[in-house]
Amino acid sequence: MNKPENRKWKVLKSENILRLGPWLSVRQECVEMPSGKQIPTWFVLEFPNWINVIALTKDGKMVMIDQYRHALGETHYELVAGVVDEGETPLEAAKRELLEETGFGGGEWSEFMVLSPNPTNHNNLSYTYLAKDVEPVTTQHQEATEDIRIHVMEQAEVRELLEEGEIVQALHAAPLWKYFAQE
Amino acid sequence: MNKPENRKWKVLKSENILRLGPWLSVRQECVEMPSGKQIPTWFVLEFPNWINVIALTKDGKMVMIDQYRHALGETHYELVAGVVDEGETPLEAAKRELLEETGFGGGEWSEFMVLSPNPTNHNNLSYTYLAKDVEPVTTQHQEATEDIRIHVMEQAEVRELLEEGEIVQALHAAPLWKYFAQE
Repeated sequence: MNKPENRKWKVLKSENILRLGPWLSVRQECVEMPSGKQIPTWFVLEFPNWINVIALTKDGKMVMIDQYRHALGETHYELVAGVVDEGETPLEAAKRELLEETGFGGGEWSEFMVLSPNPTNHNNLSYTYLAKDVEPVTTQHQEATEDIRIHVMEQAEVRELLEEGEIVQALHAAPLWKYFAQE
Repeated sequence: MNKPENRKWKVLKSENILRLGPWLSVRQECVEMPSGKQIPTWFVLEFPNWINVIALTKDGKMVMIDQYRHALGETHYELVAGVVDEGETPLEAAKRELLEETGFGGGEWSEFMVLSPNPTNHNNLSYTYLAKDVEPVTTQHQEATEDIRIHVMEQAEVRELLEEGEIVQALHAAPLWKYFAQE
């Protein structure tokens, strides 16, 4: 398929209006469309890149977690996920997060999917890795502000969670549905 | 599958620190985990709910669009999508957006998927509808700040775009992969 023509906007003015530590900053821009029409106010949320992992054990089970997510106020099953730290590659971040959150490591890793959390207002990308043949190599290392529970599940159970709408995080549902669509 | 226990945090303090028209507001909270550990600063991005539509014509083609997305700086194929306005149901918003962005209407509508854009920091949900047997009923009605191109595609073409990673928006990739996984 041909890619659509990239009809970029021209940035006429850009300023940072909020910086919240390393998590988020907000940029306010005045832009001009190719038509010449100006949009006086557009907000861009600046985040670091993110990663998540579809981790399969040697017997083909999936390493899932559950975690309370405060903005939604709910606790759901999820993939291991996290932020790419300064100086890290996405792959390094993915291996680090899997080890920290679950104690699983080793295995064969490949890039599985790259998504935009929201191309309208997020400037970052989310990388999903497929890690095959991982195994327990250490214990979970949680920070005091983390409360993560590990679930090593049959793939059929994860598919059932997807069918039931239990995996609500779009950045996790997309690669998991892709995985099952390609099975 | 059993749902995980919802280990909710207690909100000790909550204040709005930024309000950007109807698009976004930011709430800063001080919270306490069930363990008693306090997190002094947590940010919640408050958005209205969103919708998108997998729209199928009578001959089984998919009504897609492409649109420049400024935060990412790229133009990709997408589903028709938009914001649920005040006083609207998600279904009403989905029908309105499909009509405005493409001129397609009619058909049989059902809820297909509910996702969280990011349960960590977004308080809203995104509803996907499956609309079967839609047909052209009017012309596209774009606002001056919209630059949307319509593509009525074979389903095999959309599947190919997914395989190529061309559909980058997670809230669109997830329902489309679900659709093809269930085919």
